[in-house]
Amino acid sequence: MGSLSLIGYKIKKNPVITLLLPFIALVSVYFVVFRTDDSILGIGSLPLGNHKWAHEIEHTWYFPFTSRFKMPRYSYKTQHNWLFNDRVEDIIPEGHIAHYDLNKLRSTPDAAVDKERVLILTPLQSFDQRYWDNILHLTYPRDLIELGFIIPRTKTGEEALKKLEIAIKDVQSDKKNQRFAKVTILKQDSQSFDKLQEKERHALNVQKERRSAMALARNELLFSTIGPHTSWILWLDADIIETPMSLIQDMTAHDKPVLAANVFQRYYDDEKKEDSVRPYDFNNWQESDSGRELASKMQPDEIILEGYAEIATYRPLMAYFHNKNNPISEEMMLDGVGGGCTLVKAEVHRDGAMFPSFPFYHLIETEGFAKMAKRLNYEVYGLPNYLVYHKEEFN
Amino acid sequence: MGSLSLIGYKIKKNPVITLLLPFIALVSVYFVVFRTDDSILGIGSLPLGNHKWAHEIEHTWYFPFTSRFKMPRYSYKTQHNWLFNDRVEDIIPEGHIAHYDLNKLRSTPDAAVDKERVLILTPLQSFDQRYWDNILHLTYPRDLIELGFIIPRTKTGEEALKKLEIAIKDVQSDKKNQRFAKVTILKQDSQSFDKLQEKERHALNVQKERRSAMALARNELLFSTIGPHTSWILWLDADIIETPMSLIQDMTAHDKPVLAANVFQRYYDDEKKEDSVRPYDFNNWQESDSGRELASKMQPDEIILEGYAEIATYRPLMAYFHNKNNPISEEMMLDGVGGGCTLVKAEVHRDGAMFPSFPFYHLIETEGFAKMAKRLNYEVYGLPNYLVYHKEEFN
Repeated sequence: MGSLSLIGYKIKKNPVITLLLPFIALVSVYFVVFRTDDSILGIGSLPLGNHKWAHEIEHTWYFPFTSRFKMPRYSYKTQHNWLFNDRVEDIIPEGHIAHYDLNKLRSTPDAAVDKERVLILTPLQSFDQRYWDNILHLTYPRDLIELGFIIPRTKTGEEALKKLEIAIKDVQSDKKNQRFAKVTILKQDSQSFDKLQEKERHALNVQKERRSAMALARNELLFSTIGPHTSWILWLDADIIETPMSLIQDMTAHDKPVLAANVFQRYYDDEKKEDSVRPYDFNNWQESDSGRELASKMQPDEIILEGYAEIATYRPLMAYFHNKNNPISEEMMLDGVGGGCTLVKAEVHRDGAMFPSFPFYHLIETEGFAKMAKRLNYEVYGLPNYLVYHKEEFN
Repeated sequence: MGSLSLIGYKIKKNPVITLLLPFIALVSVYFVVFRTDDSILGIGSLPLGNHKWAHEIEHTWYFPFTSRFKMPRYSYKTQHNWLFNDRVEDIIPEGHIAHYDLNKLRSTPDAAVDKERVLILTPLQSFDQRYWDNILHLTYPRDLIELGFIIPRTKTGEEALKKLEIAIKDVQSDKKNQRFAKVTILKQDSQSFDKLQEKERHALNVQKERRSAMALARNELLFSTIGPHTSWILWLDADIIETPMSLIQDMTAHDKPVLAANVFQRYYDDEKKEDSVRPYDFNNWQESDSGRELASKMQPDEIILEGYAEIATYRPLMAYFHNKNNPISEEMMLDGVGGGCTLVKAEVHRDGAMFPSFPFYHLIETEGFAKMAKRLNYEVYGLPNYLVYHKEEFN
């Protein structure tokens, strides 16, 4: 106190200090503002481009408790920044109480206007740059898109992960308004789903095992990433390399609980000597009388897999209903769907619809999921003229 | 620049300013440190006790986008605070990239030592103070416990919610190390599960509808709260008012995928004129030959509900296997479980096991869940001598 009053006295006596005071105040304020930026906006922190993933430093794959991802304690006081007026993201931290009214969470035809969150889920057995570029070209607001990946515990999985990380780092360290709302990468716990090469993986006898492992992977991914704020889930295979840019807007506009796009494949037609397209995914189908009869005669644990000559179901397959002269928005009711490019209202999953890895009405994985959605009184549709493209087969 | 050199000149000329400079520097440093505390530790922010829930201010029930819960942008630079050295919580913010290795996520007999996260899920149709007090008495580290509630869209639900909020606010604004890691409260989207009074709700003809609605509520709650970091899920009914304090340690120690405690009820025995206990929950059972035969003759959508004279399954019920002279840790294999007090390894749910609201092998809800866990190759057990207590019936 004595020294303070001394200063007060000296200030009065010394006009130079009086002149200096505003300047000192200004320096202090600048310093404070600078510090505020540092802690709130991340300016001055390690550039993301140079950022090493925690596992690169720690040689581990378990991230929740790594210091890199630690956050300051949450304060209920809203942080303002008058200088930069940056949009503060809508983050509800762990450790605090979150309320959600699921009844007010909507999945509407006007998803983007309504600011509905879309979660794109992809089991990633290999990374195709065209898959990623296609994601980046989607015009749905990126800050409403969350991405989730599950990666098999195999060598090809590791390779895919490396490429994926580089791609994500690029986007998430770019302009703030160009970043995805959230990205989650899981390494699979259950048996790997990518053990088989492209050629042999379509053989009927290995399909049951492969589809069952894929179902487990889808469930792990789904249960770990769906949040109380999620409105839509888009299941998009890592092999889908081309879709319309307005994919999410187009598909949400149909306002269907489950909606599958028609998965085709571009190829070079050797006979006609021209580029052409052909149907690829035969998991989108309507049930047939033959299919029902087959099922009724089966043992409880036998399954029907669509698209094999060995099992003649005579089911109407959406792949063959494509007609380029008909409107792109044409819908058809389905009983089975594939996972190539299928949009699901989050409430369908939230009510319990998952991907059975065991025979469910003689169906598994995405086809079993469609049956489960129906058991939960949701309708399942497809868009025969709305094409998305699967990459070419390995040669 | 002119004024700066002028100041430099004046400083040299004026010894008073030279004396003052260290003091000014000190003040600046103090100011900066104070600001750092403000933004990192939340000191100086609105005390939690005075905190109004956002819905109290906004008259809404939809929280994800309310400013109260907004967070500053995450910085990859670790925030240090040498002054208070407060434990920074392990928070992975939305908007950033999270990696999880599901294979390293464990559910072990040494859950507490291994710091495994336990998620306690409760569909809350009414709030009983004894339920809450019992939760608070649990000795498992509270910072490893997350709570999740789903509340029906009814008048009694609203009342339960009000009481729950007061109770939670009390704990979460108490000492930091006494808080739960996370609390999520959902309002139900689907039909309400509490429409029926205690007396009539056990009538067979209303059970199917009630159990189906309860299954939907459980799924909504499960899908919205399970995270990639969750190791165990404890399903605990809002009517369970008494359990051993070491409930979570005791049950995780058994290291079973699904494990049900035996739900009893305290009552006054009018004949013997003394306090006594009786079995309450009959959903924990082993399948019987009679049960299998019944099921084989049923229509696809008929269900078997245990504990009704109308359906004589002669299933061995865990409720009747209680023997107070036998060890408390005695296990028995089960085929159906109830939701009173049942511990589940998160991987069981993550692989797809949910609560069917439709007949699944002629079972629904928790009994259907047990069947589904078995279809996913997980074992289901019960603890006949490990008692937890359901509250008395309404009179």
